[in-house]
Amino acid sequence: MKNLAAPLMIVSSDCHVGAPSSEYREYLDPAYRVAYDESIADRERLESRTAEVVGRGPMSSDGDAEHDALTARWTAERRLTQLDADGLAAEVVYPQPAGRAAPPFYNIFGHPLDPGDPLAAAAGCRAHNRWLADFCAGSPQPERHAGLALVGIVDDVKAAVAEVEWAKRAGLRGVILRSQPLSGFGWHDPRYEPLWSVCESLEMPIHTHGGEGLELGDLPGSRSIFFTEVVWFAHRLFWHLLWSGVLERHPNLQLVLAEQFADWVPALLHRLDKQYAGTVSSITLTEGLSMKPSAYWARQCHVGASFMNREECELRHEIGVRSILWGSDFPHDEGTWPDTAVALHATFDGVPQAELRAMLGENAIRVYGFDVDSLARHAERVGPAIEKFA
Amino acid sequence: MKNLAAPLMIVSSDCHVGAPSSEYREYLDPAYRVAYDESIADRERLESRTAEVVGRGPMSSDGDAEHDALTARWTAERRLTQLDADGLAAEVVYPQPAGRAAPPFYNIFGHPLDPGDPLAAAAGCRAHNRWLADFCAGSPQPERHAGLALVGIVDDVKAAVAEVEWAKRAGLRGVILRSQPLSGFGWHDPRYEPLWSVCESLEMPIHTHGGEGLELGDLPGSRSIFFTEVVWFAHRLFWHLLWSGVLERHPNLQLVLAEQFADWVPALLHRLDKQYAGTVSSITLTEGLSMKPSAYWARQCHVGASFMNREECELRHEIGVRSILWGSDFPHDEGTWPDTAVALHATFDGVPQAELRAMLGENAIRVYGFDVDSLARHAERVGPAIEKFA
Repeated sequence: MKNLAAPLMIVSSDCHVGAPSSEYREYLDPAYRVAYDESIADRERLESRTAEVVGRGPMSSDGDAEHDALTARWTAERRLTQLDADGLAAEVVYPQPAGRAAPPFYNIFGHPLDPGDPLAAAAGCRAHNRWLADFCAGSPQPERHAGLALVGIVDDVKAAVAEVEWAKRAGLRGVILRSQPLSGFGWHDPRYEPLWSVCESLEMPIHTHGGEGLELGDLPGSRSIFFTEVVWFAHRLFWHLLWSGVLERHPNLQLVLAEQFADWVPALLHRLDKQYAGTVSSITLTEGLSMKPSAYWARQCHVGASFMNREECELRHEIGVRSILWGSDFPHDEGTWPDTAVALHATFDGVPQAELRAMLGENAIRVYGFDVDSLARHAERVGPAIEKFA
Repeated sequence: MKNLAAPLMIVSSDCHVGAPSSEYREYLDPAYRVAYDESIADRERLESRTAEVVGRGPMSSDGDAEHDALTARWTAERRLTQLDADGLAAEVVYPQPAGRAAPPFYNIFGHPLDPGDPLAAAAGCRAHNRWLADFCAGSPQPERHAGLALVGIVDDVKAAVAEVEWAKRAGLRGVILRSQPLSGFGWHDPRYEPLWSVCESLEMPIHTHGGEGLELGDLPGSRSIFFTEVVWFAHRLFWHLLWSGVLERHPNLQLVLAEQFADWVPALLHRLDKQYAGTVSSITLTEGLSMKPSAYWARQCHVGASFMNREECELRHEIGVRSILWGSDFPHDEGTWPDTAVALHATFDGVPQAELRAMLGENAIRVYGFDVDSLARHAERVGPAIEKFA
């Protein structure tokens, strides 16, 4: 029986880790190390550009707090201190999207159709995955980190399947895909079927994370246009897998759409259900699906509601309480860290306890297979008291 | 003073015209006629593909009604008979999107980044514009047609400006742009500034029409994915012109987003206003705009609400009653023709008369400069009685 008075067991479904380049270098296939060394200089330039895109540098080292946040990307002890201070029992970890602690050759803000050298990018992803597996396993409290493997390079589907199998063995808990594959028309292509099969059978949920979009150039308005458009590109995987029948054929495959807000979900489900029913126009294309789109959403899909706001909370029943995975976006500026308790109160004040516990922790525990007893012990120690949300 | 008992003066803001290839050929620069003749065979194949995309052929000639609808694309007398029978006083005319009566070398369903031969496409657009000007001027009731010029080819901005000036002189009433320019990064590029200036000063509203999207291949699910995504691409022009300051610098420029539904407008405005206010994340990028995005929408933007449904009608105050341009999509299958009266009743029953008259006619009369006295005479003859909507 549940302890209704227990502190909140909070899992952030959207955190970011990444190594300094000297560490990544050790994990990188030696054939790519010279190119990597050269890319460090390029990365410094990319970082300046990213800093400009997001309005300020994501990794300024001014001040002790900033410095702690920077090193908490790769130092497990510092990271755990920050998780404790912020009241989190556990975290799901994505890579840094760009800049100093991003995987070799990795920049999610790049044009999805223009990945640079795909072989180098694939090597960089493999290096990150191996570093990440060691980082999680080597943490003093490994039960608090669920690492996600980058499987962005699937021109070679067999290699992608092998990487998923390796990631599972190495203790990683899911797979991150690009918004769009590096070649071809999209994730609806039947050539990716073995990838969906292995992710389903090994219980490795698949993810997209907001960041990619069409190339907009360095022009007036480009930054704002990018922010308007970027979330849409990260949504696409859902309807690509829906309409191509992947969610139908793989009923246990789980999909997580991370850091792309949650308020768009009800309108999208409404539109897709109308499209399925043929009431959008005279054209009916059910594509052989046995259920309406919102039913696949409820069964298999989740939205990573990073720094979720009150408005999104009020839409929770239309989004689906079981589909919401709250996230702090630690250690990024736009997230709730280091003031998560304040942010949670503003967003969730008055929400029934069962719903609160689902969105803040239990859903992530179910999706990622966290050990609930271990997390309960951490929550007992660091979680906010439930009375605060009465 | 308005005659409150007058029949409804209905203007369809979304109809389609197009010539048989033998007519277009006469208007086409002779340098492109051989290529055009060759493309006719290609077009037959495209038409089959389009028929497959939309589930059934848009231009089957089975049956007399179908045949009338086909020839009503280019025979003014037949067209007027259909407008009369459907209760419409006037229409705004776009080209056929693809297939037999589409402009030379034109297929809106193509990949926006892959236009084929742009010089041929530009010649095809010029041929359509000239045919269209003659079609409208040569109609027995020219006051009932507002033709829109295709200005899709703006690698040469000077040529585009010249085409807009020509179109104005030739009596056309607006400009249709592709969702994305044929080269470069997007409509937010400052190189298009002369185009916005000429459209503003000549009172030529600019348009996008749903149809373009990313290439999805001929794969399972592609058709449904296309339908899910196609409207988003047609929305983009709005936020590209917004964030790049075009709507700020050109306060009299009018924008019409046609045949892409209307129910998305409130959520988008809400999101853009939040982005402008910096409440989407910690990042504020107002791009020097003096008003919030929804204020530009209200001042300068319109949504072509083709075959508008009850749900969209109920959102009319959030969309903006002044921003809604109802359309029948004549002569396409998915539109309200030939049962417009029935469709109007289902959508608008109980709506206050002033709002009804605005959405169904007065807004379009204002945007396109129709002669209201002439249209009132046609409405008197063919328009539905207002009592039906009490």
